[in-house]
Amino acid sequence: MLLHLCTWEEVETYLKRSTGIIVPIGSTEQHGPNGLIGTDAICAEVFAKAVGAAADALVAPTINVGMAQHHMGFPGSMTLRPTTLIAVLRDTVQSLARHGFERVFFLNGHGGNVATVNVAFSEIYAETSLNPASSNGTGVRCTLRNWWDAPSARRLSRELFGSEEGSHATPSEVSVTYHTYPEAAKSVAELSPRVAPSGGFADAADYRRRYPDGRIGSNPALASAAHGKTIMDTVVPELVELYRGFVAA
Amino acid sequence: MLLHLCTWEEVETYLKRSTGIIVPIGSTEQHGPNGLIGTDAICAEVFAKAVGAAADALVAPTINVGMAQHHMGFPGSMTLRPTTLIAVLRDTVQSLARHGFERVFFLNGHGGNVATVNVAFSEIYAETSLNPASSNGTGVRCTLRNWWDAPSARRLSRELFGSEEGSHATPSEVSVTYHTYPEAAKSVAELSPRVAPSGGFADAADYRRRYPDGRIGSNPALASAAHGKTIMDTVVPELVELYRGFVAA
Amino acid sequence: MLLHLCTWEEVETYLKRSTGIIVPIGSTEQHGPNGLIGTDAICAEVFAKAVGAAADALVAPTINVGMAQHHMGFPGSMTLRPTTLIAVLRDTVQSLARHGFERVFFLNGHGGNVATVNVAFSEIYAETSLNPASSNGTGVRCTLRNWWDAPSARRLSRELFGSEEGSHATPSEVSVTYHTYPEAAKSVAELSPRVAPSGGFADAADYRRRYPDGRIGSNPALASAAHGKTIMDTVVPELVELYRGFVAA
Amino acid sequence: MLLHLCTWEEVETYLKRSTGIIVPIGSTEQHGPNGLIGTDAICAEVFAKAVGAAADALVAPTINVGMAQHHMGFPGSMTLRPTTLIAVLRDTVQSLARHGFERVFFLNGHGGNVATVNVAFSEIYAETSLNPASSNGTGVRCTLRNWWDAPSARRLSRELFGSEEGSHATPSEVSVTYHTYPEAAKSVAELSPRVAPSGGFADAADYRRRYPDGRIGSNPALASAAHGKTIMDTVVPELVELYRGFVAA
Amino acid sequence: MLLHLCTWEEVETYLKRSTGIIVPIGSTEQHGPNGLIGTDAICAEVFAKAVGAAADALVAPTINVGMAQHHMGFPGSMTLRPTTLIAVLRDTVQSLARHGFERVFFLNGHGGNVATVNVAFSEIYAETSLNPASSNGTGVRCTLRNWWDAPSARRLSRELFGSEEGSHATPSEVSVTYHTYPEAAKSVAELSPRVAPSGGFADAADYRRRYPDGRIGSNPALASAAHGKTIMDTVVPELVELYRGFVAA
Amino acid sequence: MLLHLCTWEEVETYLKRSTGIIVPIGSTEQHGPNGLIGTDAICAEVFAKAVGAAADALVAPTINVGMAQHHMGFPGSMTLRPTTLIAVLRDTVQSLARHGFERVFFLNGHGGNVATVNVAFSEIYAETSLNPASSNGTGVRCTLRNWWDAPSARRLSRELFGSEEGSHATPSEVSVTYHTYPEAAKSVAELSPRVAPSGGFADAADYRRRYPDGRIGSNPALASAAHGKTIMDTVVPELVELYRGFVAA
Repeated sequence: MLLHLCTWEEVETYLKRSTGIIVPIGSTEQHGPNGLIGTDAICAEVFAKAVGAAADALVAPTINVGMAQHHMGFPGSMTLRPTTLIAVLRDTVQSLARHGFERVFFLNGHGGNVATVNVAFSEIYAETSLNPASSNGTGVRCTLRNWWDAPSARRLSRELFGSEEGSHATPSEVSVTYHTYPEAAKSVAELSPRVAPSGGFADAADYRRRYPDGRIGSNPALASAAHGKTIMDTVVPELVELYRGFVAA
Repeated sequence: MLLHLCTWEEVETYLKRSTGIIVPIGSTEQHGPNGLIGTDAICAEVFAKAVGAAADALVAPTINVGMAQHHMGFPGSMTLRPTTLIAVLRDTVQSLARHGFERVFFLNGHGGNVATVNVAFSEIYAETSLNPASSNGTGVRCTLRNWWDAPSARRLSRELFGSEEGSHATPSEVSVTYHTYPEAAKSVAELSPRVAPSGGFADAADYRRRYPDGRIGSNPALASAAHGKTIMDTVVPELVELYRGFVAA
Repeated sequence: MLLHLCTWEEVETYLKRSTGIIVPIGSTEQHGPNGLIGTDAICAEVFAKAVGAAADALVAPTINVGMAQHHMGFPGSMTLRPTTLIAVLRDTVQSLARHGFERVFFLNGHGGNVATVNVAFSEIYAETSLNPASSNGTGVRCTLRNWWDAPSARRLSRELFGSEEGSHATPSEVSVTYHTYPEAAKSVAELSPRVAPSGGFADAADYRRRYPDGRIGSNPALASAAHGKTIMDTVVPELVELYRGFVAA
Repeated sequence: MLLHLCTWEEVETYLKRSTGIIVPIGSTEQHGPNGLIGTDAICAEVFAKAVGAAADALVAPTINVGMAQHHMGFPGSMTLRPTTLIAVLRDTVQSLARHGFERVFFLNGHGGNVATVNVAFSEIYAETSLNPASSNGTGVRCTLRNWWDAPSARRLSRELFGSEEGSHATPSEVSVTYHTYPEAAKSVAELSPRVAPSGGFADAADYRRRYPDGRIGSNPALASAAHGKTIMDTVVPELVELYRGFVAA
Repeated sequence: MLLHLCTWEEVETYLKRSTGIIVPIGSTEQHGPNGLIGTDAICAEVFAKAVGAAADALVAPTINVGMAQHHMGFPGSMTLRPTTLIAVLRDTVQSLARHGFERVFFLNGHGGNVATVNVAFSEIYAETSLNPASSNGTGVRCTLRNWWDAPSARRLSRELFGSEEGSHATPSEVSVTYHTYPEAAKSVAELSPRVAPSGGFADAADYRRRYPDGRIGSNPALASAAHGKTIMDTVVPELVELYRGFVAA
Repeated sequence: MLLHLCTWEEVETYLKRSTGIIVPIGSTEQHGPNGLIGTDAICAEVFAKAVGAAADALVAPTINVGMAQHHMGFPGSMTLRPTTLIAVLRDTVQSLARHGFERVFFLNGHGGNVATVNVAFSEIYAETSLNPASSNGTGVRCTLRNWWDAPSARRLSRELFGSEEGSHATPSEVSVTYHTYPEAAKSVAELSPRVAPSGGFADAADYRRRYPDGRIGSNPALASAAHGKTIMDTVVPELVELYRGFVAA
């Protein structure tokens, strides 16, 4: 069930049988020579829809722009400042808690969001932790899950791409987007270097200096829509279990 | 061109021929007994895609949640506080300006966003107005356009729905969403009252008291996918002209 | 009754018979070659005093500086950033609500304030909309009225100044200030051009480029203290009715 | 010269001969049984006007509402949160510095503003202190002067009111307001106790508990318009010297 | 008792006999040619420990960095923006109030903190002053005491250092740090000038221009560990009385 | 070298040979039945001092209070809201960068700080990433290192405490504090249960419900000053290498 395609009365009915909801959160940022700028948002959204369908869970609209300051050296990348994203997440959770949602499952498509999203949870919890009598103390619980951290996703990535998976613009995520939007798949010759360098980074200038075409440690030329389908078919059932466990806790 | 489906190199190429971009902004909020919660985001997105295709313009990802505090009395509605949305819009425009975008055209699907978006523009402009030497002074220009305010949209609404258009959960906007997602169209018997009451409102409790099923002044039972197609076919060309005029100014 | 000239015990007594209050809000910004920098604050204040006297309503002190980022290219203009003004308005309304005021009528003298003031109302309402049990939920209601938008003001402006009223540094507002402070009236020869150009604007540099002497669409050489008196005599009774209707609702 | 009554061209001319400006800052808060709620704003404004006239200095509009959280237990009192007032002062100073004002002299009518105004100066200075290359580094200098702290004001208060001056709702400040607005002077019988208790306070409830009629340490029954005239005639010349010294430094 | 060296069960026991706590607050900033950068934090901490020991009071960890924007022209100085420090103090007080602490005694080592700390108290109190029903209304009371403002400290400084005490990098405070960390005492020849100039300052550049070696009005060559011991032995008992009085009030 | 015990001229000299600095960051929060509330701040500080001494690196004062919202159910715990801590870290880094420090090495004692500190780095970097011409773009680089994550610390913990190390109030960290402050070591009988339960948590109430005596997964009765000495002797050299590598990069 997609929140966007429900009426409010349908949501009212849903809340009688479940207080869980899935919120996809992605990013809008460069993904190397053949990856889509929307890769992380697309992945978060397509996994969320599939998990929602399988688990009969409501899926909120996708947060399309995340924390991607380090990608700003590449045209088309967008970012929220971390403090802006924290405010967005606070308002998101308070909006949902207002209606009785008690388990908010953020399905994440972007590693760069992880710290900020967890900090936002702490910011939200801090209100009741500092002031237990607060009327904001709704008992809402939040969690964040990265689709690529599911054990099945890690296993599959090793099988399909071995040491060429890398950590940004990975063949796994690019494959999922090609499966989702086959018309947007980019044909790419051999990349040079075949596998991008690895390491850390600070701001956008530093990132671009280290990773001139945007990839980190990956060879996304291995991506294909077929691999994307395999990944989704394999990982979705595991995410469904994670969601069910979270809602039941 | 959808930013989400481009690579960064494709955006780099685009920027050589245009510095304009369209940003759809909607809302996630109740739209009466048969309207979708995502109505405003869906309309903003579908109009933006059509305008982008016709004008060969880049379209950024949709801002799905807007300012909808007054709808929070109905399950499923979500809102950003106005000051949160201002921060989101500031970061959005700064992200785009960073790459050389100079004309940011917000295509809006929600009346409740208008004041906040315009205030965000003032907040952005205030930096260079107060400090002309500021390195943030990029010369970026922003505009906001509501699809339903296009004269052709107003004309068509009068023709199709007369005095039953109203101002929230209108048959026009519901028709556009049914045309976009026909599988989500809701069948609805006669509404009671046929046309919802009209007027103002303050907070969410006040809104729900005045408008018990969520509509204001409208009879969305008149909505149909066919009307939605007519509206889009009629209004898109006018929005294309508005976009072209803005970019050329 | 002016709040500034009351004792607290007089306010306590007032609150037994009314919970309404008028807050004048203006701006401090250039008003063309012969308009006063305080035009908008002066107009808001003088109308508020007259309405307060006629309606036996309490009048709070004037908010003298508003949102005028676009005027900062002209010496003497002052502005609050929109987010600053939102905080001011939130504290203003919370201060008044603390004492039992339930109807806060902002009488506005500056078009550039409209969006920000309405956004501030939404920011205030959002607290109870997101959290109905909030102890901040006082039931206070706010409205904003521009004196020049009263139908009688529009009618009179057409009669007196026809197509030369314009939208900034108008003969109407300049007349009201000359009536209020005759000693500050400026003598001005024919302006050149007689009627200023019209249009939009972005930041302060853009505004000054388009409107070199500060006026938009107006010929304030038509202003006179006598016209100011006529305007006040005509418009005040209508504003009194608006105030009474708001307080009674 | 009052900024409110100038045109922008007159300000442009003024800036050629001086970069100093006076900003009156007051408060809107209870002043005991016979003191006006606007006492502090009225005093700041009337002293500022007199100093401006004598020193040929420009006077900005009055900041009418200050930091008065401790007075909120008495009807009609208004306050800005300290952080709101800091933002107002930052925008005020940046607005003035934008035009070339380099010496901003805050003439203060309210003891409760002192800490916050000085903190605002530090917040403003911190930008260039942390980042000397900042384009916000305008070299603007700010000072705060309380009219009652002028040695002549202290001397006169001792002569006129001896140990009954106190520290809130003092006969000195009430006298200045009665001189300014004789029509608003309140007749008051002997107060009980004749002299209010003295001491400290925390929040508004604590304040009202300690000082039930609002006064601290004072007997404002001694106030008169005639005393107000004496005070102004005596103190203004000293404030003029303070202003001149500040602008020359 | 040092909070840092207690278990939570020991704090639970303490709260049964007292709701008072001492919070040392200092600064990290230049203190002239022979003063330590940590002077203010060291003094606050060592006085707090001594007062805590003598009064059987709990001592929280030291706030080491305060408001020192004006010292940023000298290497090693650190500052929080005033608004940052206000947030730190708000969270500090709310954390303590959460556990039942009702009297928070800030023992201050830095004159530059005074305004900001008092403003933070007002910011905290403002919540209950504006909204008495607030669940944040804990009844907590805060006070700030500067160790050097104790009459015994002023008396001793006159005896020991006469007119060479000054106001920054004073021989008194330097002596206290030498007593505390004798291994860090710096040997210094005659300073030039012997006594530093006095006066005010604005931002960091202005400060460094006026006070090239960092001192204001002082001759810290007079400092010695022995004087430091005398100062502590003399002043601590007075601070103990101040603390006891505050907690009992 | 401790910044607190240097003069500004000594820092000036230091900066000629190194632009690196170590900032210890801890927390003030419950650490189970026999752990000190200051455990995390003590560990961060003592490791930082040892690393600074061995690497001839400057050590800034300790940030004693961190992000510990989840511990607020236990008396004596203190927390900064995450957004407050982000502001503190931004001001800290800007202060140091102002003087020419280019490598800021945060030595962390508290797992609960990790996400917030990394988010603060992103917030700092975002300014230059969004605005490369910004005068705030100092090229400063930050890193965070947890002492317990050093491979030698993990190895030693396994050897000394095996499966009873746990994740909060661990015998390792308690040992380090007992070694540092032997006088504060608490004698404790067998704990019950011997090893605390493990798992996650949300807000403070949830944490206390799951972990009634504050520990997670640990048996801190195994702690001893002697173990603390072993840990420090083993881990410091590795941290020195990490610091040197960071500064050289």
